[in-house]
Amino acid sequence: MHQSALSLKLSTFVSLSETDLATLARFLIRRRNFTVGYELTHEGQVNASAFVLAEGWAFSYKTTPDGDRQIVDFQVPGDFLGLRSILFRTSDHNVEALTRIEATEVLASDLFDAFADAPRLATAVLWAASRDEAMVVEHLVNLGRRTAEERTAHLLLELGARLKLVGLADDAGFDCPLTQYHLADALGLSAVHVNRVLRHLREQKLMTFQKGRVVFDDFARLTDLAGFDTSYLDQDGPLLR
Amino acid sequence: MHQSALSLKLSTFVSLSETDLATLARFLIRRRNFTVGYELTHEGQVNASAFVLAEGWAFSYKTTPDGDRQIVDFQVPGDFLGLRSILFRTSDHNVEALTRIEATEVLASDLFDAFADAPRLATAVLWAASRDEAMVVEHLVNLGRRTAEERTAHLLLELGARLKLVGLADDAGFDCPLTQYHLADALGLSAVHVNRVLRHLREQKLMTFQKGRVVFDDFARLTDLAGFDTSYLDQDGPLLR
Repeated sequence: MHQSALSLKLSTFVSLSETDLATLARFLIRRRNFTVGYELTHEGQVNASAFVLAEGWAFSYKTTPDGDRQIVDFQVPGDFLGLRSILFRTSDHNVEALTRIEATEVLASDLFDAFADAPRLATAVLWAASRDEAMVVEHLVNLGRRTAEERTAHLLLELGARLKLVGLADDAGFDCPLTQYHLADALGLSAVHVNRVLRHLREQKLMTFQKGRVVFDDFARLTDLAGFDTSYLDQDGPLLR
Repeated sequence: MHQSALSLKLSTFVSLSETDLATLARFLIRRRNFTVGYELTHEGQVNASAFVLAEGWAFSYKTTPDGDRQIVDFQVPGDFLGLRSILFRTSDHNVEALTRIEATEVLASDLFDAFADAPRLATAVLWAASRDEAMVVEHLVNLGRRTAEERTAHLLLELGARLKLVGLADDAGFDCPLTQYHLADALGLSAVHVNRVLRHLREQKLMTFQKGRVVFDDFARLTDLAGFDTSYLDQDGPLLR
């Protein structure tokens, strides 16, 4: 059986039984394509659906009353989109397709039925949500405590590690559709500043981001510069159960 | 039956059945007291426990390799402490008692048993975790997109709303054990800057933080200044189910 990115991801946390996998497969039925810029969820939306991203990239963001955009996170295959939105009375954030994407819709009822049928899966979904939170925490540390260079390196190393988990990156690098505007709005920098930081990282022979591809020229030194420690992604080491 | 702060909080999301409440009561058996500064969880810890805070305040934080501290969130009665830590191989953050606290220990097995016995409770715990994530997202927006004054007001309004949910605040204000150092490390400001911001908010007759108490002098104007919208706390409005 071909493993979905989601089951590949959840399998790094627990070994999923046949029942779990069958229940999970029900999350992946309503497969749809969305064009670049499509808004899957928006702030204030009632009865929002969640999605599981199968192909392509998305991003979640909030806007302030002044119209400033803060990108909270990027999502890659295997990630939930707008999971909070189906638990909340109204969605507290926006999710937009960053590339053309393929995603499957998950209704609140799918989730609740799954929890009743397969409690291990409930634990796995709570783990995935906790991991998403751990990433937002790191993005908070990026803005609060890391220099422009450190935070840029940290985010790109994180994306590399997450993509590696679902077979879309290796230690050499990954295909990356982000523009400098996305990086700027995620990192609290201007696009000009991001450009300068990327040039400096390249000149130091640490990493290169060109033509839609991130190449880690010196993975060890870059990791050291960023203070990047994968433990918050909880994807390495033996299964817990 | 006397309601715990946790059941009070979860009851704003779903109406809990007798079974749910009985299962939840098992989370609250191992009640312990901890002194100020006690470290309940630390980064890198293996086999960490989670706790439910019954009385007092705690805070979660991360440190950078340089030794800088970023406070991620403050926890008040009814909140989980270190919930991620029992799902992860190693804990990705620190939790420390900010006051003398009373908290009950929750083992991973308690949680997994509860999910098997009471799937509605699994949904409620996922909701609580999602709400915690929504707060971290707002703290990210604080650092990325709000001025020093806006972010200070936003955090204190958030704490007021959270405490109100468990009966420890009203629209007039709340007892607050935070020092200017805690606020500074949460808001990405220096203690001197926090001091100046608080003075300015007081001079504008918006709010006063003195002698361990936050008083909202003009709740409506303060809310407006901060762009504070409670929907991310998902605590108002009819129950979902």
